[in-house]
Amino acid sequence: MEILSGVYQDMTTGAPITLFIRNRDADSRPYEILRRLFRPGHADYTYFKKYGHFDFRGGGRYSARETAARVAAGVVAGKILEPLGIKVMAYTIELGGIRATSIDLDFVEKSSLFCPDPKATEKMEEVLSRAKKEGDSIGGIAEVRVTGCPAGLGEPVFDKLDADLAKAVMSVGTVKGVEIGAGFEAARFKGSENNDPMTPEGFGSNRAGGILGGISNGDEITLRAAMKPIPSINQEQNTVDREGQPSKLTFGGRHDIASIPRIIPVLEAMVRIVLADHYLRTKATT
Amino acid sequence: MEILSGVYQDMTTGAPITLFIRNRDADSRPYEILRRLFRPGHADYTYFKKYGHFDFRGGGRYSARETAARVAAGVVAGKILEPLGIKVMAYTIELGGIRATSIDLDFVEKSSLFCPDPKATEKMEEVLSRAKKEGDSIGGIAEVRVTGCPAGLGEPVFDKLDADLAKAVMSVGTVKGVEIGAGFEAARFKGSENNDPMTPEGFGSNRAGGILGGISNGDEITLRAAMKPIPSINQEQNTVDREGQPSKLTFGGRHDIASIPRIIPVLEAMVRIVLADHYLRTKATT
Amino acid sequence: MEILSGVYQDMTTGAPITLFIRNRDADSRPYEILRRLFRPGHADYTYFKKYGHFDFRGGGRYSARETAARVAAGVVAGKILEPLGIKVMAYTIELGGIRATSIDLDFVEKSSLFCPDPKATEKMEEVLSRAKKEGDSIGGIAEVRVTGCPAGLGEPVFDKLDADLAKAVMSVGTVKGVEIGAGFEAARFKGSENNDPMTPEGFGSNRAGGILGGISNGDEITLRAAMKPIPSINQEQNTVDREGQPSKLTFGGRHDIASIPRIIPVLEAMVRIVLADHYLRTKATT
Amino acid sequence: MEILSGVYQDMTTGAPITLFIRNRDADSRPYEILRRLFRPGHADYTYFKKYGHFDFRGGGRYSARETAARVAAGVVAGKILEPLGIKVMAYTIELGGIRATSIDLDFVEKSSLFCPDPKATEKMEEVLSRAKKEGDSIGGIAEVRVTGCPAGLGEPVFDKLDADLAKAVMSVGTVKGVEIGAGFEAARFKGSENNDPMTPEGFGSNRAGGILGGISNGDEITLRAAMKPIPSINQEQNTVDREGQPSKLTFGGRHDIASIPRIIPVLEAMVRIVLADHYLRTKATT
Repeated sequence: MEILSGVYQDMTTGAPITLFIRNRDADSRPYEILRRLFRPGHADYTYFKKYGHFDFRGGGRYSARETAARVAAGVVAGKILEPLGIKVMAYTIELGGIRATSIDLDFVEKSSLFCPDPKATEKMEEVLSRAKKEGDSIGGIAEVRVTGCPAGLGEPVFDKLDADLAKAVMSVGTVKGVEIGAGFEAARFKGSENNDPMTPEGFGSNRAGGILGGISNGDEITLRAAMKPIPSINQEQNTVDREGQPSKLTFGGRHDIASIPRIIPVLEAMVRIVLADHYLRTKATT
Repeated sequence: MEILSGVYQDMTTGAPITLFIRNRDADSRPYEILRRLFRPGHADYTYFKKYGHFDFRGGGRYSARETAARVAAGVVAGKILEPLGIKVMAYTIELGGIRATSIDLDFVEKSSLFCPDPKATEKMEEVLSRAKKEGDSIGGIAEVRVTGCPAGLGEPVFDKLDADLAKAVMSVGTVKGVEIGAGFEAARFKGSENNDPMTPEGFGSNRAGGILGGISNGDEITLRAAMKPIPSINQEQNTVDREGQPSKLTFGGRHDIASIPRIIPVLEAMVRIVLADHYLRTKATT
Repeated sequence: MEILSGVYQDMTTGAPITLFIRNRDADSRPYEILRRLFRPGHADYTYFKKYGHFDFRGGGRYSARETAARVAAGVVAGKILEPLGIKVMAYTIELGGIRATSIDLDFVEKSSLFCPDPKATEKMEEVLSRAKKEGDSIGGIAEVRVTGCPAGLGEPVFDKLDADLAKAVMSVGTVKGVEIGAGFEAARFKGSENNDPMTPEGFGSNRAGGILGGISNGDEITLRAAMKPIPSINQEQNTVDREGQPSKLTFGGRHDIASIPRIIPVLEAMVRIVLADHYLRTKATT
Repeated sequence: MEILSGVYQDMTTGAPITLFIRNRDADSRPYEILRRLFRPGHADYTYFKKYGHFDFRGGGRYSARETAARVAAGVVAGKILEPLGIKVMAYTIELGGIRATSIDLDFVEKSSLFCPDPKATEKMEEVLSRAKKEGDSIGGIAEVRVTGCPAGLGEPVFDKLDADLAKAVMSVGTVKGVEIGAGFEAARFKGSENNDPMTPEGFGSNRAGGILGGISNGDEITLRAAMKPIPSINQEQNTVDREGQPSKLTFGGRHDIASIPRIIPVLEAMVRIVLADHYLRTKATT
């Protein structure tokens, strides 16, 4: 990576920080087939419909490669959050149907799948390996926790902190669902159970996920994102060509079996970017 | 409602359309207690922490009353979508733990709870009535369907259609989770199951929820939102006062038992607004 | 004027401040002729070409009446600037060809035309009165001075402080030219004359108008705006109708002879708004 | 220049177009003195006050070098305008006090100073050569003409076409004044003289400069920008150091005598960018 602008003598200058990553490890040959066919589950079709003309090499603009830029930007955002004591951590809580049942945050870095549960990690590795053999792929769920976030970040009505987090996380290609705090489970609870009691020591529970009315409440911010299985699989699939004629596709490009664990730092980056933005906004106006 | 600007002789003029709703049915007396105490599950505390000074009458800026403006704006957005044949419909699929198991869209308008399942409606009404008796509240899940949306709406990377939908829906106060298409379920499927096959007649399934790579694919757009139980309940709750001292709160303001069914038109409105915005963007640039 | 939102107990709440002015002194009858004819020098024609349909009553969206809202917003911006010691003052330096040759800022409030030169004020009043008799109108030039502005407001490259001031001032309907500091005169000077020498006591002159490289330098900010003569005159004019056929127009609507002195508080307001915006921006990022 | 993204097979893809120009002809040595001293008329002082830390090499972010990026972006904007028949042309009308008195647009490309008047060009060259000998610099005025612009570009109130043009042109470092159509001269005319009569053949004059009420009227758009003399001169100047102590500065960096003729394509670029933006906006909403 090359820093093209915005940093001088190890300090930012106020100019835009341009982080430049040349992709030197690209092999566009498998993508040649996209001249004719669409890959199911990919954006080949929608880009073709929207733009007519598109750069399909390596998946182009909708390739998961673009998340490298998110991670790089997240590091810059992290530099804003660090002196404030705001820490963001993401990990795998579910993969291929296996759910982590214990949360040992110290284990996350040791787990090959960034999973806080040693036993679940083993089972996940098995499921992953089985999917690989079958030429298939699997999905999963990641959880993000933010500690040290002060109360007061987030704007009323439209630019709520949870709304911006949801957008940022959903903008990652593989994500199909986002929930804050108790999330979808909150729909099954009663108000008397779901309200976090307020005590002199702080909130008695954290079903809100650290956000009330779109504004951080000083408690830990928690959210979860659901990732679909990677659409590239080593199996023959039914598809159509650009003229709408039926065809069979077996796609040989390089691809992972699951977006986990690679998505973990991407989610951390997106959350950091949103928090840094809201911190600067709050700094300006309160 | 009064239209203050932007419309002349039943046509828009290009000037901002100002829709003005005076709240003539307000009773601020029960809110007097907010001078001292915070309501658990409400934004009283976060507004106090963010702004120090806040207008607590009726919940102020974070009151569910602000959704009236969203619904009004959604009608304007609908006027843009209507001639394009884009239709947005929301309904209740779960309330207080009761899930709709059949989907009869014609029944939605007949259901007191905008639920497409007659039997589920009955059970939901019972749960609702029981919660009322207990002075409690319940949460639920709504589903939104968009038909007639052409392929090509949505922007690459950050302003993906699903990202903007997630933000818009999550910005509604009561919402704690959003999912597109198969959503969280997608995390448990294999790629071979989750990819929607492409055929000359269109997609063979719609697990993507009508959006691929953040751009509409021409299929039905489907999303679900989880609503937490309304935090205002008729039970005594533990809370603190502005000085952090423990206190008991029994709050008597007017409130519903569930945000459903009132949230249904709000969700429709937010989805319409996002689609209209993206339609105008796409019109400019493609 | 009514404050619809954003203020509670004499303090802002963080919600948008809505200032609502109903125009109760409108007489739309003279504008009926706009159903057919365009007024030369007005935006009737361009609104018709842009929108087809437009609200011509009172000039509608392009009426000088909209500047009332700018002045109101400028008062809010002033509340941000006041505790910082930033003061904005505008006055007339030229009207109908008469130039102020002495600057007595204390006289501005006493001058019927907000002109700092008592003798010039008299001559301007004569020119104004003559134009009125002739059914004609006249233009002028206003100068704006900002004192107490700290160094550091303004952003590099596009959102320079002078660029934003130019936009804000040029967005006032009657303005046809904007210059900062020495302005157009700077084009006739040499670098050795135009550079403001730097001394331990500050800048030795202020040809820069208080802005260097788009960022305030701590010196007085000075700018001038040229106002065209008001296009509404009590003389018959050649024009065309909506079908492009030639026609004669004598327009009887209420109008001033010059936008001065009414424009003076509008220019002050626009400058205050830009400064308040840049102050908040700077507060967020430095 | 390298095109890093957004173009594939000679066509745009919808992805951002990144144009990358490495400055390979830089000599930072003369700028070493900026570690201690400020150059009068430059932004050294304001950047130091705003950021504390700044990259002074070559003038950094406020160097005229950044206009290369504007010219490159203007070429892209021109690709949008070209098929619409919108043409933008800028030329020198005044330099070092010499005014062009005849306008022969065909001569502009032949003039070493992009001046449409052969005789004025000669005199300007003399003034320029004299300033060079004296180690001094000179300012000038450029005029921009836009032909083929349809009526209807520009937005009411704040984002008027002339307001956005003023901002774009004023954002160029050397510009100290902008005027549209008759500009500052309009302040000296009567309404009966300044109004452009409307006839079946079009406007009888063009004192408005092609914009009425902030919206293009279909006539030629004309504007003028005043450029200050380049602040870098080969003469000793009074200045201060970072501690505010008085000092003498003789700065030896490479610099031009006048921003003309180099500024001419920059002004064309900025006008093209504004017109392309407004065209896309108008395309979306009318």
